[in-house]
Parts: sequence; structure tokens; C-alpha cells
Amino acid sequence: MVPCPFAAATVLLLFRAGVLGFPLGQGPHSTTGCGYKSCPETQPTMLNVHLVPHTHDDVGWLKTVDQYYYGERNDIQHAGVQYILDSVVEQLQQDPARRFIYVETAFFFRWWRQQNAETRKIVTELVNQGRLEFVNGGWCMSDEATTHYSAVIDQMTLGLRFLNDTFGPCARPRVAWHIDPFGHAREHASMFAQMGYDGFFFGRLDYQDKKRRMEARDMEMLWRASESLAPPTADLFTGVLPNGYNPPAGFCWDQSCSDPPIQDDPNLEDYNVDTIVQKFLKVANDQAALYRTNHIIMTMGSDFQYENANLWYKNLDKLIRYVNAQQSQGSKVNVLYSTPSCYLQELHRANLTWSVKTDDFFPYADNAHDFWTGYFSSRPALKIYERISNSLLQVCNQLEVLGGPSSRRGPHGDGDSETLRRAMAVAQHHDAVSGTEKQHVANDYAKRLAIGSAHCQVLVSNALSKLSGSDAPRVYCESLNISVCPLTESSDEFSVTVYNPLSRPVGWAVRLPVNGTRYSVTDPSGREVDSQVLPVSQATKDIRRDRGHATNELVFQAQAPPMGFRTYSVSLLQNWPPRAPPLPGAPLFLKNKYLSVTFDPDTGLLSSLSNLETKQTVQLKQNFYWYNASMGNAESLQPSGAYIFRPNSSTPVPVSLTAKTRSLQNPVVQEVYQQFGSWVSQVVRLYEDSRELELEWTVGPVPVRDLFGKEVITRLDTSINSSGLFYTDSNGREVLERRRDFRPTWVLKQTEPIAGNYYPVNSRIYIKDGEQQLTVVTDRSQGGSSIQDGSLEIMLHRRLLLDDYRGVGEALSEPGEYGDGLVARGRLLLTLAPPAAAAETHRPLAESLVLQPLLSLQAGRLHPNALLEFSGLQAALPPAVHLLTVSQWDGDSVLLRLEHQFQVKESQTHSQPVTVNLQKLFSTLTVVGVSEMSLAANQWKDEMTRMDWKGSTGEKPLQKEQRDPSTWEVTLKPMEIRTFLLHIRR
Amino acid sequence: MVPCPFAAATVLLLFRAGVLGFPLGQGPHSTTGCGYKSCPETQPTMLNVHLVPHTHDDVGWLKTVDQYYYGERNDIQHAGVQYILDSVVEQLQQDPARRFIYVETAFFFRWWRQQNAETRKIVTELVNQGRLEFVNGGWCMSDEATTHYSAVIDQMTLGLRFLNDTFGPCARPRVAWHIDPFGHAREHASMFAQMGYDGFFFGRLDYQDKKRRMEARDMEMLWRASESLAPPTADLFTGVLPNGYNPPAGFCWDQSCSDPPIQDDPNLEDYNVDTIVQKFLKVANDQAALYRTNHIIMTMGSDFQYENANLWYKNLDKLIRYVNAQQSQGSKVNVLYSTPSCYLQELHRANLTWSVKTDDFFPYADNAHDFWTGYFSSRPALKIYERISNSLLQVCNQLEVLGGPSSRRGPHGDGDSETLRRAMAVAQHHDAVSGTEKQHVANDYAKRLAIGSAHCQVLVSNALSKLSGSDAPRVYCESLNISVCPLTESSDEFSVTVYNPLSRPVGWAVRLPVNGTRYSVTDPSGREVDSQVLPVSQATKDIRRDRGHATNELVFQAQAPPMGFRTYSVSLLQNWPPRAPPLPGAPLFLKNKYLSVTFDPDTGLLSSLSNLETKQTVQLKQNFYWYNASMGNAESLQPSGAYIFRPNSSTPVPVSLTAKTRSLQNPVVQEVYQQFGSWVSQVVRLYEDSRELELEWTVGPVPVRDLFGKEVITRLDTSINSSGLFYTDSNGREVLERRRDFRPTWVLKQTEPIAGNYYPVNSRIYIKDGEQQLTVVTDRSQGGSSIQDGSLEIMLHRRLLLDDYRGVGEALSEPGEYGDGLVARGRLLLTLAPPAAAAETHRPLAESLVLQPLLSLQAGRLHPNALLEFSGLQAALPPAVHLLTVSQWDGDSVLLRLEHQFQVKESQTHSQPVTVNLQKLFSTLTVVGVSEMSLAANQWKDEMTRMDWKGSTGEKPLQKEQRDPSTWEVTLKPMEIRTFLLHIRR
Repeated sequence: MVPCPFAAATVLLLFRAGVLGFPLGQGPHSTTGCGYKSCPETQPTMLNVHLVPHTHDDVGWLKTVDQYYYGERNDIQHAGVQYILDSVVEQLQQDPARRFIYVETAFFFRWWRQQNAETRKIVTELVNQGRLEFVNGGWCMSDEATTHYSAVIDQMTLGLRFLNDTFGPCARPRVAWHIDPFGHAREHASMFAQMGYDGFFFGRLDYQDKKRRMEARDMEMLWRASESLAPPTADLFTGVLPNGYNPPAGFCWDQSCSDPPIQDDPNLEDYNVDTIVQKFLKVANDQAALYRTNHIIMTMGSDFQYENANLWYKNLDKLIRYVNAQQSQGSKVNVLYSTPSCYLQELHRANLTWSVKTDDFFPYADNAHDFWTGYFSSRPALKIYERISNSLLQVCNQLEVLGGPSSRRGPHGDGDSETLRRAMAVAQHHDAVSGTEKQHVANDYAKRLAIGSAHCQVLVSNALSKLSGSDAPRVYCESLNISVCPLTESSDEFSVTVYNPLSRPVGWAVRLPVNGTRYSVTDPSGREVDSQVLPVSQATKDIRRDRGHATNELVFQAQAPPMGFRTYSVSLLQNWPPRAPPLPGAPLFLKNKYLSVTFDPDTGLLSSLSNLETKQTVQLKQNFYWYNASMGNAESLQPSGAYIFRPNSSTPVPVSLTAKTRSLQNPVVQEVYQQFGSWVSQVVRLYEDSRELELEWTVGPVPVRDLFGKEVITRLDTSINSSGLFYTDSNGREVLERRRDFRPTWVLKQTEPIAGNYYPVNSRIYIKDGEQQLTVVTDRSQGGSSIQDGSLEIMLHRRLLLDDYRGVGEALSEPGEYGDGLVARGRLLLTLAPPAAAAETHRPLAESLVLQPLLSLQAGRLHPNALLEFSGLQAALPPAVHLLTVSQWDGDSVLLRLEHQFQVKESQTHSQPVTVNLQKLFSTLTVVGVSEMSLAANQWKDEMTRMDWKGSTGEKPLQKEQRDPSTWEVTLKPMEIRTFLLHIRR
Repeated sequence: MVPCPFAAATVLLLFRAGVLGFPLGQGPHSTTGCGYKSCPETQPTMLNVHLVPHTHDDVGWLKTVDQYYYGERNDIQHAGVQYILDSVVEQLQQDPARRFIYVETAFFFRWWRQQNAETRKIVTELVNQGRLEFVNGGWCMSDEATTHYSAVIDQMTLGLRFLNDTFGPCARPRVAWHIDPFGHAREHASMFAQMGYDGFFFGRLDYQDKKRRMEARDMEMLWRASESLAPPTADLFTGVLPNGYNPPAGFCWDQSCSDPPIQDDPNLEDYNVDTIVQKFLKVANDQAALYRTNHIIMTMGSDFQYENANLWYKNLDKLIRYVNAQQSQGSKVNVLYSTPSCYLQELHRANLTWSVKTDDFFPYADNAHDFWTGYFSSRPALKIYERISNSLLQVCNQLEVLGGPSSRRGPHGDGDSETLRRAMAVAQHHDAVSGTEKQHVANDYAKRLAIGSAHCQVLVSNALSKLSGSDAPRVYCESLNISVCPLTESSDEFSVTVYNPLSRPVGWAVRLPVNGTRYSVTDPSGREVDSQVLPVSQATKDIRRDRGHATNELVFQAQAPPMGFRTYSVSLLQNWPPRAPPLPGAPLFLKNKYLSVTFDPDTGLLSSLSNLETKQTVQLKQNFYWYNASMGNAESLQPSGAYIFRPNSSTPVPVSLTAKTRSLQNPVVQEVYQQFGSWVSQVVRLYEDSRELELEWTVGPVPVRDLFGKEVITRLDTSINSSGLFYTDSNGREVLERRRDFRPTWVLKQTEPIAGNYYPVNSRIYIKDGEQQLTVVTDRSQGGSSIQDGSLEIMLHRRLLLDDYRGVGEALSEPGEYGDGLVARGRLLLTLAPPAAAAETHRPLAESLVLQPLLSLQAGRLHPNALLEFSGLQAALPPAVHLLTVSQWDGDSVLLRLEHQFQVKESQTHSQPVTVNLQKLFSTLTVVGVSEMSLAANQWKDEMTRMDWKGSTGEKPLQKEQRDPSTWEVTLKPMEIRTFLLHIRR
């Protein structure tokens, strides 16, 4: 059925009415008083000081998110969010002038669920009157350095949807608010712009940058956050807050502070109104000198403040009263309760031209030797677990749609996607995946992901039962990376279903721990697939200890259709003799039809990499090193810690100058095992059909008995003439150019030659020259740099002895499962290509690491009627298109995000607009309505209006969007993400 | 005018209607719901757990009272009472079941004054419904060891009057509540009984005592608090709280605690309802085993808690809900919000017979080496300043009455008594006059007293102007004890007015610093008075440093009429030659017509004291010693500190074995100066007309460079055969017998042979045998003991090096005015008498030290028409009668307290009922109405009904009070205080 455009539009309107909780103008509440309309009056001829009462509630840090919510473990940190919300709601009712902003929906959601109807009514009224304003509004305030855009969009969507469903448009945040994250990613700004935010405020930026901006009155600017998206699509007005997110010194009236309250009873000792008023006037005028309008903002709050909001409001009431009383004596300062959006509105009204920023705010240093570049790599196991969980969540989302209602309640029990969705959303917090939380909190994040994953596995099993017709139990082996899977270790016959969440077919090397020596692997058509049995390496046995007993791994190349699965049957052929281990001294050489790799026979290290298709070769020496973590020195007491990276020397120590090697070659895979002393090893691996070289590194337990904290890197030294430049991605999307010892927007005084050159690597880092580009695709977020021309380095693991004085109060020294130090294992995928074509390899490669096939296993012989192959798509989507989101929204609606995954000019082939027909998308679902939404799906796209800001580069105003070819055919331009709500029928 | 009884009664009733803010049954509010009637329902067949939400708000301790009120200096201690009351009032409104008690009216008064009409209305309603209940209700929770009963009655009156004036009878506290004071005085219990309290609860008692009481289920008792007053006049039901005043371990939900909150959302981690309920049931049942009824009390609060009352109430709500929900599963525990009075009512309903206690709860030890007996003497200068200020306040009160309205607004400006009354009330707090506050807080108490004194001085000047007819400025020299008075030092002619607040004429040795060598002193009749000029001692010059330059002191004996004044004129006769200093080697011997005193010529120490009238002589060696303060040792880490006295040896170190002496004799006074090394000296002084020997000691700066903390005592070793017994007063009233190494109510295990035998001495300590009683009357509260038979010791000063771990966080090391250590000076008055007659001397002697004459000075020649002598009384009152209170109440009403100052059997002459005619009392005021009140003047005496309690001694029920001879003639029995509101006409 292809309905005519008119019919489609009718369906659409009917459909839209019921989908968003309270579509604009249709909610049960009056909206006249909220948003910008609810802003307080200001004085045009005075300096207006916008006091913004706020709390900053970490979604886990020193305590777990639930401990923070309830106020448990106050011995660790006094913080109880339930009481904050109780108290603020009570205090807001005392005076209609009072304002409060709330940020973290993860907490608000917990609280709301516990409120009775009366409180809910009161809160709704406060929201509708703009007295309680949500800003940012995601589930958490995400980290910007170590998060992937896909998970960030999900967590924002989750939070904003709750607000929209609960309160309607009055609760829609107008302002993005990242007051605490430790540096700011351009991709975050781009996403915020596409989510419809009018402005963005943050607190932390490089101290040199801040100094320059203060001197130049350049604290507020226009951030042009994409090189691909046409302005103002990714333009975001951005303001640097004056005091981080704290109140000015001397004006903190929270229970956690010790500043003197306003003592205005002349009958009591210590009357201090006059002193405080004079001090405030000075602070306000000093601040005004740094900003450009007659409006300034003061953040009146901080971490977990307002648990007893009375303290704050009572004193702020007095401050406002007494300071404004000076106006009758000629004072030109006007203080008022306000919100970030009300402040923003005044800036907008000022109609100024703002400087344009095009780079990002990394790395962040708050002092000369205090670079917050350690957390890019802190807790590598949590970072990979978060990434794997995201992949599972996307699979879970897709299968919830494809499997229909029985996915949630089916033969395998009750499953759901929201448990993992919430766990993932919590994990995006800037002290979660960042690795900057206490150990017990890191454990809690992992536990939540594990619980969520279990819920998703039930859902996935139900959906696969529905789609395949086979109700046999499914097993998910989550420890395949250490060759543990009880089912495959002990079964003679089982099947493997490979579900591929990508919109194109993928090949995937399946590796299963087994104890047999020969197996038969057949595809759905019954064809035998090439398979090999390799011995499990000693390194792997060492890691897994007594958790598994497989001696071998069965390896074969599986294929899976777009957004679908394929099932392979495996049966044991031979148990004996054992596989010979790979031989030391075998030739160190890997080669398939795309790549060849050489090793230095003297050192056992990699020595070159060649692309056989393009006939390119680079010299490539790779080794492992550790920076000796500073314990503080005469120059600065700053040690390395969870946040801070500070090596005590710029020369890292090699773990070993040579590697002991063994090699293995067979028709499926070629491997060279490298052993670098007792705690670092690597498998250099080339699959038969791969265009990338895999480096599977294993690091740990990092020894610290020598009392040296160690920050372990791998470094690739090549013959590429990179001229001080290297490239890193931003949150897994667009790539930014980095120049060693340089910042685009100020004259850098470099004080930490290593740490000051580290940048976040979410998915890839590369160097290039005119001919060659070596790209390293990572499996998780890590820190990386290029300290010498031709060199790339990536920090893999960190184990430290001291806390770094940023509050976490623990040395980053992960105990691991056995208490003797965490072992981390991961993969780097290397590609070599001409720069102009490199993206054509690294874009899909990185995508395939982010959304990995999900393996499910069933014991025994397959049911003869089981469907062994399925694709949810009618056909693979074009290579430029990424199926970012397919997720059940409501009963008959599905959220769809399509993404153009190439930047402009990145690929001659793919950096072009591409069109997708939504009605021809799904194989089993009929799309009967579609409506485009903002990126976070809390607004209809055509109702999304954003403030326009004038940038100093004099760009043209927004070009009218190119129309889509038809209602159903949507065109994606480079780096564009389009979000649709589909009305479906099964 | 002597109205007939009937007429008097009529006047009285009319008068009463308007005097108390809201006399019972006549207030504007319904009273049906308050008091005992507002108590929650309980379950007769269950264990009822009375949860009592409360805060304990020190009226100064680590911070000043105003810092505590406002929440300033939260860096020292987090505490802000304004917020506590804000928060509690808000939370009480949330649920009518919730209860709160409030104690310290000093804070409530500050808060109430800042509230608007709406809040006041809400609070009034809460009080009227019994949801906010006042307990104790004095201005502060007074110290019991170092306070004088006169100041305690005043501070209770001040607090209770505010409550009564503000809220009427619903606010009248039914329960006395001394949860924190460090030991409990019998006189306090007696006063509470006479104030109409139905019961008394406290938290601190000797750990051995508590253990015994727990084992014997004797935690609640009947305290018979007077040996003189007929039961049940001074009977007070008394309960020991189970956990001091804290909640049971694990159930503290204040923001200052870290116990886990009740986490009842099964969607969140750490759900703990079941664990907490089970734990609570165990705690409740364990506690019930220590008490006698099926009701127990739990104090749910502590120091400065409930600043954010939501935390407490939210969790208590849940506790009650979840624990009581167990009743449906057979649980027999019923938890409820309650108050001490509601708990008390249930105990009363139980109709049990309670054990009878007749001694007191001193000394208090909370562990074997932790005797809280140091604070009896801590901060001797603050202790004397408090006592002097009380004397001034009583003078001020009397003169406000005698001088009439122009006392407050007169020729010398605006004066008042309430500033000093409030300062005195604050100073009664158990961390004020006790000396257990931080130094800056001690300074604040002194500052408040000084400000209050200045207000009173203006009032006194106005009143004296009115009474004398002389408007010339008056000067009050407050440093006469160190011979500083600029007026007398520099004037050739001036007058001295001696105001005597006692109800009998007194003689008083006036000592004025002068620079002349001969003066003429004349009394009101122009008669020359014997006067002498003595040189100022070197010790005094050392103390005053550069504050005064008098070389001499003019000394003469002044007389003053009862409650009146006499003015003496002084003029310089001769300036030269200087007075010769007293000679060393002069005969060491003092003698007047009553006493003779000998010294050991070898040591210079006192050697004997004789009463020439009774022909008694005791050997009497007196010297100064210091205990070496413990710094903690292997037995216990406890050091001496502001609270704790712990000598590291039972043998004190003599300051010096001998004294250097000089002596001086003249017709007015005989003195022997004794110098004991560099930092202790003494003047042994005998005035011509004195029956007591004065020892004026000077101690300090106590040297601590040797790193020995010093606790300085003076010890009198006599030939009296005291047989282990000694006697100390309780709050300046009744005397208790003490027995060394003994407690009347349990078998003492003595672990600190010195500190464990120390008792508070508020006004006197004595030893006796069959013939002789040596009584030492003190000028302030001090600690004292008798460690050997015949020996008496008094601790004079303390300077320590360590904090004693009771929270004050400072070593008690007073810097003094010059920063090098405080010098303290004071007087001990010694009398020797037969035991049966001793009270006839020490009662009036102590009284005259408590209420001292006030000297005011006027420069120049007296105005010829000035009235030079005045008495406010028609005649001196009988010797047994003490005029305790004469104080303006309202426009035409005056508060009068008459006290019988002798105990039963204390004096053959005076321990008899005595009658006073109220209409014949005053010389210038006509008493037209009188109504008797409770001791604290917040109830009419005839409306005061108290709960009756059965004591185990089977005493008879209350004898009907002996009727007074007539309406105007009131009879006082031994130790009785009667409180009247007089309706007066001038």
C-alpha cells in the first residue's frame, strides 16, 4: 500500500494527536504562563542579576544513584535527592517569585513515582507557571568525553520523554546545562542544537581559555558544532558560567555551606545586612565587567544542595529585598529570581553579534599541571561493558519492534527493554562511563547493566522465538572474550543464532570455547561453513582462572542479514587428539587478500602494514609502554588519578623491548600471539575476509608493588608524515583535527607535554599524510594522542596509587574479580588507506564495533520447522545510511532514527545526500503514518522553533530545507540524523 | 488602708483577669484539644512506643546563642535554630498525627519575633492542638551544678511567661526536661515541683547508677527533693531516658546522621523495610525490659536536629506505618508519635508505686575515669561575673519598682531590666555558667551581661535620681576588686551611694581606689565615719597593669537600710606623704571582737581560727595546691578538660610550702598579705565588725609552660573530726550531706579518689563534728570536697592543655585580658560556730554575698536637697525571711517572692514559720491586691494541680496547707518560697 500524500497526512494528524503525552497546545494545562512567557520582569536601565537556584545531582559518584536518591550512606557524602525535591517543592509554594531548575530526570522520575496525587498536582502547577523549570532534562547529565552519541541521544530521549509524558510542553527544557562535565564535546553541542535547545551553559573550561575569554568579554558565544550540517542546524548559543556552577564566594546559603546567613534582626548580635549588600554589589559589578549585556547570571546552588531549600530561599529573599532596596538610594543593580532560559531570553533580546566557536573544549585543565585527560581511559572494563550494553539495547529495541507484544511476555518469561534503557541512561552520567566514580559505584553501574541485560535477553529470546518459531531456551554467553561459555564447552550439538542490528549484511567471526577438536558448522541452507579449532591461549586461561575449562576455540565466519538473524548449526566431529598449540618460531607474517603484516623477527614486534588493494605500505612498530604516574612533585602536588593524567616523565617505560611470539595460520584466521612480560599480551589477528587488522590486547593485573602508578598505552610508530596533526572523533560521530601543543582559539602555554595533548577517542583516531591514513578504530572510549609525528598512542589501562583531589577520594586501582587487579582486554582495529577513501572503511568498521551481532545459543539439534534466517528490512539500506534507532514507542508507534554516517567531503562515493523510502523499509511491518520529530523525540520537527543568534562570521540565515521527495521518501544529507515516529501495522 | 478580706478578694479577681496573658479558661483559644487531652490513643494490650521528635538547642556552646539562632559559623558546628523552627512548623502541618516538643524559649522567642501574622496563627493552632508542645519552657535548659536558685527561678519565669503571654495555658509545659545537664541537683527538682511540673526526664546519670537502675527496672522514680518542704510539695516524678536524649542506634534520621533511611521502593536497590522493622521490634522489646509499664519512650532527635524536619518525619511516618503493619501478623508493638507529657500520662495511669529518691545525681561519671566534676570550677571569672550580674539584676528589678516609670525613661536616658534579665537567663544555660563553652562563646556571655548591666545602670541611675532628687551623673565602678575606678582615683570630692537589696540593714566595707592619703567620709547625717587609706598591693597592680593608677585604697564601713540606699560624702584631706606599705615581719595576728586568727610564723600560713563569742578554736592550716591534670594514661585516655576533672595523682602539688607575708592593722581592717610564688597570693582580712574571716585569693596566670595542666585548689586542714562527712549546698539553697567514697543509692565502686568525691559548691561547704562547724561561704560556684577528715578543699581555677572529648574541642586555657592567662580573684568567707547555730551565720552571710550592695558614685559635692537615705520597706523583714524577688510585672503589678531561708532544724531560732504582712511591706507602694502564683509565676497557685504519684515510702497524702492568718498576712515555713503578684498603687 502506498497511500497518496493527502491520505498519509490525514493519518498523520490523527496519529500525532495521541502520541506525545501532551502535544503543544493540546495538553490539559494552560501553557500561557510557562517557558519564556513566565520570565520575571527586568530593569532595562539597570544591571540585572539573575539568581538561579539549582542543585547538581550526580546520577552516581561517591554513592550509587539509589543511595543518592534515598540519602543512604550519608557517611560517605551527605546527599539525599528525595529530600531535595520534597523541600524545593514546598519552598516554591511559599512565594510565586521563587524559581528552581531541575536537571536530572533519573532522579525526578524516582521521586515522581513516589508522590501522591496532591503533590503531583502542585508540582504540575509549578511547572505550568514556570516556577519549576526543567533544564537539560536528560536522564542524566552525560559525560562528554567518553560517551557515544547513540547512547547520549537515547538517554536524552528517555528523560525528555518522561517530562513530556508527565507535564507536556511546559516541561520541555529550553536550555542545555552541562555545568559539571570535564570538557565539552562538539558533538554534544551539535546534538543539543538538533534537539531544539536554544542555548547551552557550562562551567568547566581550560583555565587559560577562561582567562582569555574573561579578558576579552568572550564568555558567551555561538558554537558552530558541525562541519557537515548547514548552519544554523548545529549552531548552539553557548555561555560560560562565571563561577563554575557555584554561587559567588560568600553567598552560599545551603546547609552544606558555612557562609554567614543574612542576619537582619537588629536585636541580635552580628547584624550584617549592610556588609552583605555592599559585598554583593561589588561581586555583581565585577562580574558584569566580564560579560557583554546588562544581564548576568549567578548559579545559586551546587552539588546536592537544596536538601533544605528554606536556607537558600530565606536568605535569597532577604538578599533580593535588601539589595533592591538600595535602588531608592541610586543603586543600579536589580536582583531577581530567574532561570537559565530567562537569562538566555534577555541575552537574545540584546540582539548582539557573538563570536563563533568551531572546535571543542578538550582537553580541560584547571591548572598548569592538572589536565583532566586521565578519565578518557579510566575503568576500561566499565567502558567496554557500557558499549556492549548499548549494542544489546539496540538489538533489544529492534527485536521488541520486530517480535511484537509477545517479546515482552512470551515463552521465556517477562522481558523488557526499559530496565536496560534506564541502566544505560544512568551509565552515561559524567561520573559513570567516565570512570570517575568510587569503586562500589562502578560496581553498581555494572550491576544495573547486567540486570538490564538479563531483562533484554528474555525479551530477545521471546522475540526470536516468535520470529523463528523455536521456543527452545536460548543462552547468551557474555564471557566469550575470555573463552567462557558452559553450553558450547560441554555440548556436542548446538546452534548459534547471529542477530545483526545493522542495516546491511555483516560478516562476523564467531569464536566459541569448545573442548572438541573438529566441528561441523552448517548455515541455514545446510551448507558446511569453513571452521577451525584453535587452542585457547595461556593468557586467556590465566584471566578466566577457574571460570571455564575450554581448551579450544571454534572459529568460523558467520553472515547475517540486515536487521535480522541467521542460525548456524554446530556439531562435534572429533574430540581427539588435542590441537597443537601454535608454534614458537613459526613465520611471523600475516596476509590475506587485503592486507599483509610483517613483524621484526628480532623483537617480535609489528614492523609493517600493507594494503594490498591500494598497494600502500607503512612501517609500523607497535609496542606497549607505561607512563609513570606522578605522585606530585615540587612543581605541583597534583598526582595522577581517576580524572587527572599526569605522567612524571614524558618518556614512557616499555613493558618489554621484545615480545615472545607464537603464530597460527589456517584458512579462517591468522594470528600472532605476543607476550610482553607477565601482564601484557596481544594477539595480532587477521581474518580471511577482513580489511582491518585486529590487535587484541590484554593488560593486567597492572603491577604496582614497585609503588609506581602505571598508565599503560600502546604506541604505533609509523612512517606517516603527520606534521603535528592527528584526528579524533567526537562522541563517535564527526572527526576533529588536533594539532600537538596547540589550541585553535588561544595561544597555548603548554605545561604538560603528554597529558596536555591527550584527547578523547570514542571510536577512532588517525594520522595521515598526503598518501596514507592509518586509522585505529577502538572498541570503547579511550584517551589518545600523537606525541611524535607518525606516532599514535592510545591509553588502555590505568592503575594508580593516589587520589587526585577531585573529590572521588580513592586511588583508581580496580581490584578486578579476584582482588589482585583488574585485567582488561580489548581490540584495536587498524586500517590503512588513502586519506580520501579512508572513511569508506573506518565508518562502517566503527559502526560494526558499536552495534555488534548478538549471539544466542540453543542446545541440541534445531527444530526442523524453525526459521533460520530472517531480515526485518526489505533490503539493505544504502552504505551511507545507518539505522540508528528502531524502538517501540507506544502500542502502534515506533521510533525510527536514520543517520547519514559520512561527513561532507569525507568520501567521494558516500558524502552525498541519500534517500530512503520509509514504506519500503520493513519487511514485516507496514508503516501507515510518519511524523518527523526533533532529535530527542520530544517535539514535532515542524513545531520546533529555535532562537536565532547572530554569529560574527556573518553566515547566511537558514536556507529553506530541501524538501523530501515525498511524504515517505526522506533524504539524508551528510551527518544528518532524522528522527521519525512511525505509525505501524503488523 | 486595710481593706476587709472580702474587698480584697474582689480587687483580686478583677486584677487577675488582666494580668496573665491568657488565664486558664479565659484565653481566646479553645483549650479542649491541648495538654493531656491531645494525647494520641494507645493500645492497652500492646507495648506502646512513644516516639518523641525533639531538638536539643544549646543556648550557646560551640557557637554563641545568636550564631546558633541564625546558623552562622556553620564551619564550627552545623546548627541554625531559625531553620529548625521553620521546618518543624511546616512539617507539623503535613499530618495531624505528628508531634514536636520545643524546649528553649530563648530561641523560640527570637524566632517568634520574626514571624508574620499568618505563621503565628498556624503555630498557635499547632500549640492549641497539642501538636507542638512546649516542655521545660525556661529561657534555657539551666545548668544544675553551677547555677544559683535565684537566677534559675528568674530564667524559668522569663521563658514560661513568654509562653503564657503568647499562647496561654495550652503552652504551659507539664514536663521538665533536662536531658543534657551533667548531673542533677535536688534543688532543681524541688523548684520544678514547686513550678507545677508533673514530671521530669533527664538523660545523664552516673553509669553505675544507670546500670543498677536498668537491672532493677528502677529507671523511673519519685524524687523527694526537699527535707524541709512537706510532701508532695517538692516531690517530682523523675524518669531516666533510655538513650540519653538520642534515638536508638540505627534510627537517627536527621540530616546530621548517617543511618540508612527507610528505603521502601522495591524498584530501587537497597530496599530495607523488613530489616529495619525487625531491628526496631528488637530494640523496642529490649528497652521494654528495663521499664515497668507497657509504655516506653524514645527520644527521636538530638543536638540541633530537625533543621530539615522532613528527613525525620518522612522516615518516622514510614517506621510507624511498617512496624504497626506487623500487628496484623500478630506483633504486639504499637508505635506512635507522642510527647513526654503523653508518655507521662500513661505512666500515671499505670498507677504503680515508685521508688523514692532523696539525694541527688552528683557527681556524674559516664565512665570509670570520666567524672564531670571539673566544670564545677571551670571559668571562675565567668562564674563570678554571672553571680555579680544577678545581684545587679535584682537591684535593677527592685529599683524599677521603687523608682516607677521614670526608671526606664529618665534623666540618664533609657534604661531597662529585660536586657540583663535575658542575658542572665542565657547565662544559666548548661554550657554557659558551667564554663563548658568555647572561649569566644564565654566572651559572648560576658558581653551580653555587660550590655545588660549597662542598661540596668541607666535604669538604676534614673531610679536613684527619682528617689534621691539628684540628677547628677552616676558612675558604677565595676573593677573595684582590682582597685580601678577613674572617678575616685582622680577626684578630690565625690559621693558614694550604697544600695542594699536585702530586706535587712547591712554593713559593707567600701574600698575605693584613691591617690590621696587621707579622706573625710561623712554619712547622711554629716557624721564623720572612720576611714583608712591603705596602699594598693603589688599583686593588684600586677593584675590591673595599665588600667588604673591608684596607689591607695580608701576603706570605710558603710551601712545601708533594707531595700534602700545611703549616701556617703568623701573629700580629700591630704595628698602626701604616701602611705607606707605594710611591713614584712609585723606580727601575724588578726583579731576583732568576734574572731581571732593566728599564723605559723615559720611558714606564714594560717594556723588557727577562734570564735571569741563561743570560745571555740580550731587548728586551721590553709595553703594552695594544684592537681596535675591527667593527659590520659594507660588506664584511660581521658584527660582533664572543661567538663572532666581527672588529676593524674591524688596528691596535689603545693604552690609553695611557705608564704611571704606582710601585715597591716588599723581600726577599720586588719590584713595579712600572703605571697605564694609568682602566681598565687592571698589577703587574709578581718574587718572590725565582721563575724567572718575573709580570704581574698588571687590565682593566675596559671603557668603551663611546664606542660602540666593545673587545677588549683585551696585546702583547709583543720582539727575538726569530720568522719568522712561534709556538706554542700544545692543551687544555694538546701544543704546535702556528702560522704567520701559513698553514694546513698548504690554500692559505689570508687575509681577516681579525688574527682569522684567532688561536689558542686554553689554558696557553701562545711565540715563539722559534735562541737564545731567550719563553714566556707563562696562568692561563686566552685567544686569542693573533703578528701581527708578535717579537711576541706575548693577548686579555684583551672588551666589545661587538652580537650576532654566532650565536644567543646578546646583545651580550657583562658587567655585573660592580656592573652597570657586569666587571673582570677575571689573571696572565701570562713565562719566557725557550733553546728546547731552555724546556719544563723552562714545563711545571712551567703545571702549578703549573693545580693551585694550596689555602689554608685557621683563626682563633686552633693546637691543640698538630695535625699541621702531611703528604704523601700516599712521595716526590715524578720531574719528568716529573704526578699527573693521584687520585680515589675506589668503597669500596676509587681512580682514578689518571699523566701524562708532556713531549713527545718537548721536553727533553733529561725527554723520556724514566720509571717509577713504584705500590706505593711513597702514604704512607698500601696498593695491593693495580691494573688499567689506558682513558683515560676505562670499559674495561679490555686489553679495549680499536679499529678499525684505513689512513693514506696508510704508517706501521707498532702496535708491541707495551713491557712495564712489573713489575705495579707502570709506565713512562710522553712525553705518555703511564696510567689505573689501584687497589685500596687504608688
